Amino acid sequence: MSANPSKVTIKATALLLPLLLGIAALCSAVPDPRYREYLIKKERSQQTGGRVVLSEAELQFNVLLDKLKLQEMETSDFPPAMHFFKAKPLIDRSKLFSLLQKMPKGGALHVHDFALVDVSWLVKNVTYRPHCYVCFTDSSSVRFVFSLHQPKTSPQCSKWMLLETLRAKVDNTTDLDNSFIRNLTLYTYDPEVAYPSQDVVWKRFEEAFIAVWGLVTHAPVFKDYFYEGLKQFNADNVMYLELRALLPQTYELDGNINNRFWTMRAYQEVLKEFVGKHPDFFGSRVIFTAHRGINASELTDILKEAIKLQEEFPEIMAGFDLVGREDTGRPLWYFSKALSQPAEHGLSLPYFFHAGETDFQGTDVDQNMLDALLLNTSRIGHGFALVHHPTTKALSRQMGVAVEVCPISNQVLKLVSDLRNHPAAMLMSEGHPLVISSDDPALFGASGLSYDFYEAFVGIAGLKSDVGTLKELAVNSIRYSSLSPQQKEEALSIWQKKWERFVVENLPQ
Amino acid sequence: MSANPSKVTIKATALLLPLLLGIAALCSAVPDPRYREYLIKKERSQQTGGRVVLSEAELQFNVLLDKLKLQEMETSDFPPAMHFFKAKPLIDRSKLFSLLQKMPKGGALHVHDFALVDVSWLVKNVTYRPHCYVCFTDSSSVRFVFSLHQPKTSPQCSKWMLLETLRAKVDNTTDLDNSFIRNLTLYTYDPEVAYPSQDVVWKRFEEAFIAVWGLVTHAPVFKDYFYEGLKQFNADNVMYLELRALLPQTYELDGNINNRFWTMRAYQEVLKEFVGKHPDFFGSRVIFTAHRGINASELTDILKEAIKLQEEFPEIMAGFDLVGREDTGRPLWYFSKALSQPAEHGLSLPYFFHAGETDFQGTDVDQNMLDALLLNTSRIGHGFALVHHPTTKALSRQMGVAVEVCPISNQVLKLVSDLRNHPAAMLMSEGHPLVISSDDPALFGASGLSYDFYEAFVGIAGLKSDVGTLKELAVNSIRYSSLSPQQKEEALSIWQKKWERFVVENLPQ
Ligand SMILES: [Zn+2]
Ligand SMILES: [Zn+2]
Repeated sequence: MSANPSKVTIKATALLLPLLLGIAALCSAVPDPRYREYLIKKERSQQTGGRVVLSEAELQFNVLLDKLKLQEMETSDFPPAMHFFKAKPLIDRSKLFSLLQKMPKGGALHVHDFALVDVSWLVKNVTYRPHCYVCFTDSSSVRFVFSLHQPKTSPQCSKWMLLETLRAKVDNTTDLDNSFIRNLTLYTYDPEVAYPSQDVVWKRFEEAFIAVWGLVTHAPVFKDYFYEGLKQFNADNVMYLELRALLPQTYELDGNINNRFWTMRAYQEVLKEFVGKHPDFFGSRVIFTAHRGINASELTDILKEAIKLQEEFPEIMAGFDLVGREDTGRPLWYFSKALSQPAEHGLSLPYFFHAGETDFQGTDVDQNMLDALLLNTSRIGHGFALVHHPTTKALSRQMGVAVEVCPISNQVLKLVSDLRNHPAAMLMSEGHPLVISSDDPALFGASGLSYDFYEAFVGIAGLKSDVGTLKELAVNSIRYSSLSPQQKEEALSIWQKKWERFVVENLPQ
Repeated sequence: MSANPSKVTIKATALLLPLLLGIAALCSAVPDPRYREYLIKKERSQQTGGRVVLSEAELQFNVLLDKLKLQEMETSDFPPAMHFFKAKPLIDRSKLFSLLQKMPKGGALHVHDFALVDVSWLVKNVTYRPHCYVCFTDSSSVRFVFSLHQPKTSPQCSKWMLLETLRAKVDNTTDLDNSFIRNLTLYTYDPEVAYPSQDVVWKRFEEAFIAVWGLVTHAPVFKDYFYEGLKQFNADNVMYLELRALLPQTYELDGNINNRFWTMRAYQEVLKEFVGKHPDFFGSRVIFTAHRGINASELTDILKEAIKLQEEFPEIMAGFDLVGREDTGRPLWYFSKALSQPAEHGLSLPYFFHAGETDFQGTDVDQNMLDALLLNTSRIGHGFALVHHPTTKALSRQMGVAVEVCPISNQVLKLVSDLRNHPAAMLMSEGHPLVISSDDPALFGASGLSYDFYEAFVGIAGLKSDVGTLKELAVNSIRYSSLSPQQKEEALSIWQKKWERFVVENLPQ
C-alpha cells in the first residue's frame, strides 16, 4: 500500500483547490470567476458524455456539431418544444438531423415487434399481395386478413372485401391507401385537438395496433416484416436491435396456425439471412412480452413457456417483459410471486420491465420501477417517473440498470408535451445510465432511431452536450444490451471503426 | 467524547439492518417485502414534509386529507394536468381546495406589486372613481389615466374618453367592464390556441401589465390597491407578504409626481393601518425590483438608490431583484460587477434573484441560478431549471437558499403544461428547501396563494405527500423569509396557534 507521495499531494490539491476557491468565493464580495468556471466544468463532467476523452478529430467534429445545434435553437420554432407530428417536417430539413442519421448509433434496445417498419410499406407492399381482405369497423378503423376464401364477417365490422376487387372499383386508390396509412399510425394534423387526453391517445394507439395485427401475423408477411424492419434500422445506422416481441401465433393461407416456437425460429432464420447479406449488422435479440392485462396464474403459465423458449433459443432470446398501458394495468408487485418463480427454481429468465411510464406520483403503479429493480430487472423501459424517486434512482444507478428513454413515444402518448421538460434531462445531467430508443416508431410516424436521437440530443441534453454525449449514448446501447461480455466487446470494436469513419467523413470544411 | 455504548449499538443496527436486508433481497430470488417497505419509507422520509413529527390530531386530520386527495385523482379531468384557466372551475368546486383556503399558509414570498388584487376590483371600484379616462390601443388593449383635464392623446391609442361619459353612452356597462377585465388578465377560454408560444404569451403578459399601470400608479389608488391586496391575501389565510415592487413614481390628480421614497412610505403607512385593523396579520416587506432591460451603468445608479432605501427603510425593505423575461434579457453574469459593488463597499443589500425561469438548457441565461448563488442571493425566484444543474442544486441546498416555486405562473407562461411534470416534484422528492408562491395571481385569474398550494399539493407533490408536507411548506415560508431570527420565531408561534386551531376545526367526523 505504498502511495506515491507526489501523487498524494496532487490529489490533495485537486480536492482542496475547489474547496478553497469556494470558501474564498462565498466569503468575498465579488464572485470569483475561477470558482464559477470550476463549478460549470464540474457540472459538465457529470453529464452524460462529460468524461469521454475526445480525439483531435472528434474535437474538430464537435465544432460542426456545436454550430448546427445552435442553428436549431435560433429558429423561433424549436422542434423539441413542438409536438413531433408538427416538428417532423422541420427535423427532416435539419442538417443536424441528417448528420445524426449518418451517425453509427449502436443498438436500439426498446422497440416493439409490430412498429418497426414504416406503415407505407405495409400498405404499398403487403396489402397489394393476393388474397388480402379488408373490413371497415364501426369505429372507422380497418381490419385486414389474408384468406383463400371469403372470411366470416367479424362483429362490428363491414363485410370483408377482397382488396384487389375493391381497388378495381374505387376511383382513387391513392386516397384509399392514404386512409389505410392514417389508420395504421397515430399521425394527425392537429394532435392537441385530436388527442385531448392520455385515455384518448391510448385508445387510438391500441386501435392502430389491432389494425396492423391481421397483416403482420400472416406467416409470410411476418418474416418479410421483420426483414424489412432490420433493413430500415440498418439503413438508419443502427447495428443491433432488441425487440420486445409478443411472439403471436401466425396463420398460413391454408388456415394452418403456427405456434410461438415457429415464430421464434422465424426470427432466427430471417436474422440469419439478413446478417448474411449485411455482414456489418451485428444482430438482434428478442424480449418475449406478455400483456399486463393477464392475471397471475396466466402469467405463471406464460413464464413456463418463456423458460422453455429461453432454453431452446438461448442465442436469440434475451428475456421477458410485460407490456400495455401501466396506468390502467395491474402493478408489477401484483405479479411478484409469479415473477419470482423462475429464479426460485434456479432457472434463468432475465427481465426487461417497462416501468414508470406514468405521470401520476405515489400510486401503486408509480412503484413499478422499484419493484422492477427488486425483481432484478436488467433495464427499465421508459422510467419516465424515475426522477420522482431518489431512492429508486440511486438503486438503479448502483445496480447499473439503464433506463430506456423513448422521447417521441412519451410525447405522443402525452406524458410530456415540451421535450425540454422530459425528465431524462435530469438523468442526463447526473450521468445516469441510459440509452435512447424509439419504442414504436412506425406508429408515431417516425422511423429507426434518428428522430429520437435528435430529440434527445437537441431537446433533452441541452446546448452543452456534445460529441462526447453522442458517443456515450451509442456506447451505452451496447454496454447495457443483453449481449454477452464477449459479444459486447466485438460489437464495440465494430462500432468504434464505424464511428471513426463517420467522424473523419464529417469534419468541418 | 464518551458515547453511550447502547446508543452506538442501536445506531449501528439502524445502519446495518437495511444494508443486510438489501443484500439479502438482491441475492435472493424473491424480493423481500421488508426491504421494499424500508426503501419506500426511506424515500418518503426524504420528501418535503417527510420528517415532520405529527400530533395525534394531525394524524387524524391526515385521514381526511388523504381521502380528499384521492377524490381529486379519481376524476377523469385531473385539474393539475389541465391548463389552470380550464382547471379553475373544477378547483373551485373541490373540497380539498376549500380546505387549503382555510389553511394558515404562512407567507407568500414571491408576489409582484401590481398583480396582487383581483382585477375585477380594479374595474368595479377604481375605474368608477371620478376623473378616470380610458383609451383603446391599436393592438386592442386599453390604457387608463386619472386626470382633471382631457389628457393629451397617446401614440397608437384612441382619444381619451372620460369613463363616466362613456358609461353613460353605452347600452351595456357590464359588457364594457368585462372587456376591461379581459384586458387586465391573461384569462382566455382556449389558452392553447390563444397562446401558441412563450413569445406570444409573454407579449400578452406585458400588455396586461401596461394596461394596469395607469390605474395603480395614481397615488391614491396605489395605496388603496396595496391595502386591498393585503386584505385579499389575509382573507386567503396568508399572514405575511414579501412583495417584488418596482417602486414606480406615482402621480397626483394635480399633476404632481411622487418619487420612490414616497412610494416606500406609502407601503409603510398602508401596512401600519392594515395591521392595526388586522392584528393577526404579521406584516409585509418589499423587494425592490428593476427591469433586466437596463444596462450595467443604469443598474449601478439604481443600486445606489436601493442602498439609500435600504438605509432609510430597514424595517420594510428586504432587498433587491431584477425582473422581466429571462430568456430575452441579459444574463445575470453581465451585471455581476455592478451587483458586487454594494458588498465590496461593505454595504448590505440582500438579493432575491429571479433565476432559471427558462426551458432552455446550457444557454447563458440558464447559468443565472449559479450566478445568483455566487452573488449571494437569499432565495431563487422560480429556479424552474434548477433540476438540470446538479452542482448548482447542491450548492443551493448547502447554502440554505430556498427556491420560490410558482406553479400556475410557470404553466400560464408556458414553461410546462401538465403540472405533474413540474420540476419542483423532483425538488420535493429530495426535500430541497422551497416555498410555494403565486407570482402574479391577478394576471392569471387566480388570487392569494391557495390555488398554487392546491397545484403544488395535488399535482406536484404526489399522492404520498400529506399533512406534514403542507406543514413544512407553510413553515418554510417563514423560515426562508427575510425576517430577522427573532421575528421568525414570533411569526412561527403565531402561525403554530393558527395551525393547531385549523387542524382541530377540520378533523374528520
Ligand atoms: Zn415500449
Ligand atoms: Zn416573478
